[in-house]
Amino acid sequence: MNIQTLKEASDCLLNLAKPETQAIEHILLQDAFERILAEDITAKIPVPSFAKSAYDGYALRQADTAAASPEHPVTLDVTEVIPAGSVPTYPITEGKAARIMTGAPVPEGADAIIMHERTSFTENTVTLTAPVTSANIIPPGEDVAAETLLVPKGKILTASDLALIAGQGIAEIGVYKKLSIGLISTGSELLNTGSPLEYGKIYNTNPYLLGGYIQKHHMTANYLNTVSDDLDSLCRAVLDALKTNDVVITTGGVSAGDFDYMPEVIRRIGGDLLFHRLKFKPGGAMLGAFKDGKVILGLSGNPGAAATGLLCVGFPFMRKLSGRSDITFSQTTAYLGVDFKKSSPVTRILKGHSDFKNGMLYFTPLSNQHNGSVSSMSDCDLLAIIPAGSKPLAAGDKLEVYIL
Amino acid sequence: MNIQTLKEASDCLLNLAKPETQAIEHILLQDAFERILAEDITAKIPVPSFAKSAYDGYALRQADTAAASPEHPVTLDVTEVIPAGSVPTYPITEGKAARIMTGAPVPEGADAIIMHERTSFTENTVTLTAPVTSANIIPPGEDVAAETLLVPKGKILTASDLALIAGQGIAEIGVYKKLSIGLISTGSELLNTGSPLEYGKIYNTNPYLLGGYIQKHHMTANYLNTVSDDLDSLCRAVLDALKTNDVVITTGGVSAGDFDYMPEVIRRIGGDLLFHRLKFKPGGAMLGAFKDGKVILGLSGNPGAAATGLLCVGFPFMRKLSGRSDITFSQTTAYLGVDFKKSSPVTRILKGHSDFKNGMLYFTPLSNQHNGSVSSMSDCDLLAIIPAGSKPLAAGDKLEVYIL
Repeated sequence: MNIQTLKEASDCLLNLAKPETQAIEHILLQDAFERILAEDITAKIPVPSFAKSAYDGYALRQADTAAASPEHPVTLDVTEVIPAGSVPTYPITEGKAARIMTGAPVPEGADAIIMHERTSFTENTVTLTAPVTSANIIPPGEDVAAETLLVPKGKILTASDLALIAGQGIAEIGVYKKLSIGLISTGSELLNTGSPLEYGKIYNTNPYLLGGYIQKHHMTANYLNTVSDDLDSLCRAVLDALKTNDVVITTGGVSAGDFDYMPEVIRRIGGDLLFHRLKFKPGGAMLGAFKDGKVILGLSGNPGAAATGLLCVGFPFMRKLSGRSDITFSQTTAYLGVDFKKSSPVTRILKGHSDFKNGMLYFTPLSNQHNGSVSSMSDCDLLAIIPAGSKPLAAGDKLEVYIL
Repeated sequence: MNIQTLKEASDCLLNLAKPETQAIEHILLQDAFERILAEDITAKIPVPSFAKSAYDGYALRQADTAAASPEHPVTLDVTEVIPAGSVPTYPITEGKAARIMTGAPVPEGADAIIMHERTSFTENTVTLTAPVTSANIIPPGEDVAAETLLVPKGKILTASDLALIAGQGIAEIGVYKKLSIGLISTGSELLNTGSPLEYGKIYNTNPYLLGGYIQKHHMTANYLNTVSDDLDSLCRAVLDALKTNDVVITTGGVSAGDFDYMPEVIRRIGGDLLFHRLKFKPGGAMLGAFKDGKVILGLSGNPGAAATGLLCVGFPFMRKLSGRSDITFSQTTAYLGVDFKKSSPVTRILKGHSDFKNGMLYFTPLSNQHNGSVSSMSDCDLLAIIPAGSKPLAAGDKLEVYIL
C-alpha cells in the first residue's frame, strides 16, 4: 500500500467504481428532474415534425404578392381557417390564402406567412399593399433534427433536458437508482441532536454536513446511529451498513490517537485497506477500504477535515459510481481576493467563496479554516488545492479552483 | 391597468406575495436540506461549550516547562488519561500532566497541550526538551459564540447550515411548506407524452421545462392535464387548479390570435386581470391575474418565451411567497463573449451561458434564441436584460447578468 497523495487515492477509488453494475429504474419524465440519465436519448422525430407558421396571419404564395403596392393592392381569397393542431383541407393555389394560427401546419402550396397586422382582411379575403418577402415558416427539424443526440447517458437532467425528451413524446426514461450512502459517526464525545448537553461532549454535526453535500449530489444520505469508540460496536455498525448501502462513510477514528479504531475495524471485518493517511491538509487523516465489492471511506472526525476528504477523494468516486459522466468538479481560474500568509509544506486544500467583481472571479479563503469548525464551511462554494512547497500567496495571484 | 414593463409587473406581483400566510411545518433536521427556514436560529450554547484539546497529547502548565532544554529535560507525572467525551478527574498542579485526546475537555489548571509526538513518554511520565509556548486549547465559543444568529429565517438550508443547527443539539426545525405550483397547458395542437404522433401536432414540453425550473426552486410542480382551446374546459381547469395549488401557471392563450382565450377565462371566473402584454421580448405576451387570494400567471405557449416570463416576472413573486429572503436572482457583471448584432427596440431578455476564461466571466448568448425552441434553453445559466433602445452589442462589452 503505497498510496499517499490525493490523486493516487482518488484514482484508486475511481478504478473500483463500476457504474455499469448500478441498478437502473424506469420512471415518469415528470419525476426525473436532477436524476442521472442511464441511456442516450436520440431524436426519433424532427422537432417540429412539420412546417409550421411562426405567426398568426395568412399563408400564401409570395409570387402572388410580388406586384402589391399601396396604389395596386393585391387581394387574395381566403380558403379556410387553420387553427394550431388542425390539418389543412385545401392547398394554396394562385390567388388563394388561408388564415393560419401560430404553430399551425402550413398548407401545401404556400411558401410564406404574412402577419395579420400587416394586412387588411375580411372574413373571405385578405389584402396586401406590399410584396411578401420573408417566409415566416418554421421548417421541420428547425429546433431538433432527427437522429440528434438530445441528452447523453450520464447527464444530470435539467429542466431543458426534460423538455427536449418530452418533445419526442417520451413519457418514461431509464435513470440510475440513487446511491444510498450510509453515514456512521464514531466518538464517545458525540451527542445526538435532541439529547441534553453533557459537559465535555459535543453534538454530532458530521452526518448533517456530509449528508447535505451528499444530497446536493443527488444521492440518498442514510443517517445511521452514532457509535461509541468501541471496536465490536464499530465492526457491527460497518457490517450492517454495508448490507443496505452502496457506500459506507465513517467519521472519526482515523488519526494517530489511542482511540482511533478504524484501521483495526477494517482488518477485523476482513476488508482490504486501500490507503490510510494521505499527504494533504486538512482531511488527510482518512482511510479507504474495500469489502464485499463496496467502498468504505473513513474520514476525519473534524467536520472541516471530513468535508475536504469527502469532496476531494470521496466525490469523484461516488459521482462515477452514481452513473455521472462529469466525475470531477469543474475547474477554473480565479484571482485570490486577499493575501494568504501561510506557506504550505504539504498540499493544502483551501476552502473559499466566490465573489464576482467587475466581471472577474475572486476566490476569498474563508476566515476560519480550523478543521473542527463548522461555521467555517458556511458559504464555501470553491476549493483551491495549493501544491506542497508553496510559499504564502498574495491578493491578486491566480489560482486554479474547483466549483462545488 | 397601466402595468406595462417587466419591473412594474414584477413589483405588482411582489406586493401580493404574503409569505407570512404560508404554512410552516416542523421536520427533522436530516430532512431539511434545501428547505426554506421559517425561523431565526440563534446559538443557545457556545460551540464548543468547554475548553477542549486541539491535539492528542499532554495537558500541562506552561510555567512547568519554561526551563526545559535538551540538556535539562523536564519530566512531569501523568495523573490520568482523558479520552474525548470524558470528564477530567484531577486538576493539573505543579509538576503534573494528563494524557489527553483531541476534543477532550482540558483539565482545570492546565494552560497548554503539547502534541505527543513532541515528547517522550512512559505510562506514568512525560518528558519535554523545550518550553511549551502555544496553548493548543480551543476556547469555549471559538467556533460559535452564544447568541450568534446562526441561520436567518428565509434562508435555503445548505449542508453547513444544517451542521450549524445540529451543533446546537436541535433535532427539529420549522420550515415553510413547499409551494405547490399547478401547471396547465392550453392548446389544441398539444399532445401528451406517451401518445402517438399526429400530423400538425406537437408534444407538450412546457410543463417539463417550467416544472424543472420550479423544482430547482424547491417548489412542487403539479403536472395537470393539457386542456384544449375551449373556454369552458379552460375555466374549469383553472378553478380546479386554484383549489389545490398556491399558484396556477398556464401556458398558451395569451397572444393576439383568434384562439387566445386566457383574458376571457380570467373575466369569466371572476378574477382580477392585473396586467396583460408586457413590453419585453420574448415572453411579454403574458398575463397576471388574482383570484381567491392566489395569483394566476398566464405565460406564452412558446417554451422559450414562457421560460423568460416565468424567470423574470414569476420567480421573484414565487420566491417571496415561498418564504425566501433572497427574492431576486443574484446579479453580476459579465463580458459579452461574442458580438450580438441585433438592436433592441423593446427590452430584450437574452439567454446565455457562462464561460470562465482566465478568471473572467463571459456571457455567451445561446445560438438559437427562437421563442419556440426548446433546444435553445439548454445550458442556459445566465440571463441579460438589454434595455429598450439599445444598439447592437460587441464582444467584450460589459453586461449586467442574472445568475440562474
